[in-house]
Amino acid sequence: MSLPAALPHLDFVTDPDVLGSLSHDDAEWAPVGRATAAVRPRTTEEVGAIVAACADRGIPVVARGAGTGLSGGANAVDGCVILDLSRMNRILEIDPDNMIAVVQPGVVNNDLKAAVAEHGLWYPPDPASAPWSTIGGNVATNAGGLCCLKYGVTRDYVLGLEAVVGGPAGPYGTAVRLGHRTTKGVAGYDLVGLFVGSEGTLGVVTEITLRLRPARAASPRTVVGAFPSVVAAGNAVAATTRRGLLPTALELLDRACLQAVEDWKHLGLSATAEALLLAQIDTPGAAGDEEAAELAAIFQSAGAEWAEQSTDEFEAEALFAARRLAYPAMERLGPVLTEDVCVPRSAVPTMLATIEEIAARHSLTVATIAHAGDGNLHPLIRTPPNDEKAKEQAQSAFEEILRSAIALGGTVTGEHGVGLLKRRGMREEQSPEVLAMQQALKNSLDPRNIFNPTKVTGDPES
Amino acid sequence: MSLPAALPHLDFVTDPDVLGSLSHDDAEWAPVGRATAAVRPRTTEEVGAIVAACADRGIPVVARGAGTGLSGGANAVDGCVILDLSRMNRILEIDPDNMIAVVQPGVVNNDLKAAVAEHGLWYPPDPASAPWSTIGGNVATNAGGLCCLKYGVTRDYVLGLEAVVGGPAGPYGTAVRLGHRTTKGVAGYDLVGLFVGSEGTLGVVTEITLRLRPARAASPRTVVGAFPSVVAAGNAVAATTRRGLLPTALELLDRACLQAVEDWKHLGLSATAEALLLAQIDTPGAAGDEEAAELAAIFQSAGAEWAEQSTDEFEAEALFAARRLAYPAMERLGPVLTEDVCVPRSAVPTMLATIEEIAARHSLTVATIAHAGDGNLHPLIRTPPNDEKAKEQAQSAFEEILRSAIALGGTVTGEHGVGLLKRRGMREEQSPEVLAMQQALKNSLDPRNIFNPTKVTGDPES
Repeated sequence: MSLPAALPHLDFVTDPDVLGSLSHDDAEWAPVGRATAAVRPRTTEEVGAIVAACADRGIPVVARGAGTGLSGGANAVDGCVILDLSRMNRILEIDPDNMIAVVQPGVVNNDLKAAVAEHGLWYPPDPASAPWSTIGGNVATNAGGLCCLKYGVTRDYVLGLEAVVGGPAGPYGTAVRLGHRTTKGVAGYDLVGLFVGSEGTLGVVTEITLRLRPARAASPRTVVGAFPSVVAAGNAVAATTRRGLLPTALELLDRACLQAVEDWKHLGLSATAEALLLAQIDTPGAAGDEEAAELAAIFQSAGAEWAEQSTDEFEAEALFAARRLAYPAMERLGPVLTEDVCVPRSAVPTMLATIEEIAARHSLTVATIAHAGDGNLHPLIRTPPNDEKAKEQAQSAFEEILRSAIALGGTVTGEHGVGLLKRRGMREEQSPEVLAMQQALKNSLDPRNIFNPTKVTGDPES
Repeated sequence: MSLPAALPHLDFVTDPDVLGSLSHDDAEWAPVGRATAAVRPRTTEEVGAIVAACADRGIPVVARGAGTGLSGGANAVDGCVILDLSRMNRILEIDPDNMIAVVQPGVVNNDLKAAVAEHGLWYPPDPASAPWSTIGGNVATNAGGLCCLKYGVTRDYVLGLEAVVGGPAGPYGTAVRLGHRTTKGVAGYDLVGLFVGSEGTLGVVTEITLRLRPARAASPRTVVGAFPSVVAAGNAVAATTRRGLLPTALELLDRACLQAVEDWKHLGLSATAEALLLAQIDTPGAAGDEEAAELAAIFQSAGAEWAEQSTDEFEAEALFAARRLAYPAMERLGPVLTEDVCVPRSAVPTMLATIEEIAARHSLTVATIAHAGDGNLHPLIRTPPNDEKAKEQAQSAFEEILRSAIALGGTVTGEHGVGLLKRRGMREEQSPEVLAMQQALKNSLDPRNIFNPTKVTGDPES
């Protein structure tokens, strides 16, 4: 019996256009397979029924949220069913007494932020995609964002999960509850931590229990510095860490990114400097003022053309808006291959110089945005449309940047995930022994290889 | 060939007295097996050789640090070799530019704190055992402590690990490097998170890369409240969370604990109130003063006999010293069975009342210390020496408290680990499906069951 016939009450999509749009994420360079169908469940029970039916037929299951991923992690594999979780978008509970929210995976990050703000609470993780990306997708990739520097990543906020799994837990389609509702808990292995960032390869997350924080008393201060080179900006980042300052965000935008946003949105940004650093400080009161002044002084010492605390709230808002829009603004200009390397903070200047050198050698346009304070850099490699030679150059540059990051003690992916694009890089970063442990975990929890096969631990050459 | 003969360059201990003292941790109630020998390696290579030789002979390996554990996780199992890691106690690197330290597992928590403080840095995790317990032990149990409320637990500070493993990675005795040196990283499954809190059941951790924070500018403020009952103190804790206040620590001590410390150490504590709450606030400047005043007002509203910011630094120091000494002070008075339940913060008053009710029903003396702000309670059940009937009553009360915590949405262990004492509790807390996943992970990474067998996932009835 066909899958739609076996699950007649479910909403299957087979229209080729819609199926096509559901078959890939935002990683333009990653290969896309041909899905059999997509399905839009509304409950855990429906997810369970779909997974069970797929497993019975040996059909791979690829879960997706909003499709804002940048590594191909949600791309279709041949013959798969796409599990579109966007209709599982209810906030199930907000518990102010315990600073907890319980949500379905399809809830959009910013929608959750708005809902908990009404209770005086704050959900910190803020990937630049927060207006569109879902909590389920954020959990799948262990998404970072702008304020990780002080407030951590998605994993730091996930207390518990419900997931539909298979293998040791029982027949495929079994729902399990992992973790707890308490702030601490060490009963057994950290299954929640294992599922966060596993990119849908171990099961389908159907409910998420999140830790919240109290809302911040006041808007954070913004400190801006304009630099004559990205490397000078990198030096300011390294100096900030060395001095023990902990801004909530420390973002870098180079001139190409600023210009691309300005050309698109006309926010009134001047794009004369080669690089901007944007920092936010939320330490309250006079201590916050002192930190802001110290940060501006550090920027100056590192060679900033100017650096100051922004007193214009609209300007500060526009600058952070520009940061968030940098990626889509660059995408408008042609195919973009996005890096996500992360290096120790002291290596940021060297990594930025290396990226410039690699770009020049391959005659490529590389624009850089970065969560610089985390050492997490997003060089965006842009090629003219339909230029196959440039595409090959870009691919070579991509691999060289990964290799350089590893050589500096870094990792190939700080927050976007391995997906399809960084499988080769992960194999260069990790030893064969560690890769064998990764594969053993996958085999152990998904012995029939139903959940998002070929991703993460999959063979990049196959 | 015997193990000492096969490894002639290693320092084996077979003296029965020394071996006896190395064969158990601080969990007086947990069963202790008969070890074959103990060995004190100094390098990863030596650990690898021992693990390889043990695996060849089917000998279980039980790693230990300072033996301050409270669940029997480091207790000998019959026929095992005890791996005493206390001589692997070197701080290998402090990198102020990246706020990172690399240490061997035998480094004592407070020694690390002191060493990084010289560089203007801070390692926050502070279990009450910090003057004695080792970082390796802290990693094995994912130790918490006093300042978790604001600054998180050990897992939040571990970026990378070196571990000696077996199974999928290669022959037993293989050393692998897990994780990274960067602040973020999502290449593959979170193996570091899986090893942290795994209580030595997946391998032996031989090196730890830790994230540090900048040192705090000033000493935190201390707010103290004296309450007519532990339940009133619990209400103050729940109200503090509800108001969105985030002290660095919010500790509860009942009168029995205070009295036990005073009788031992003569710190000049008055122990007239039924319960004390001790809070620390490290928000700088005037904002910190406001928070301290607000917290004192919350304590008053919840029924405190008195509540105020301590202006006497010595008094504040003495109170926190009393908190840290509460456990050994109680231990002096007779066998102590320690709970480690953790409940949602709003359930703290109910859980405290339930503990009192259970103690009364079993005619037991129960003293309570608690990381109350985390909902993590340590009722200490005390029985007269050599009173078998009281011991049985205590065991029943212990299991009832675990069950009550689960019923309130809590967990059986917030920070001490499962070890031997909470295996039954974990089986009540987690579903058979989740327990099967736990066992599958153990089987996958330690297929020959060499690393600390019978602990955590082991059968409590065997």
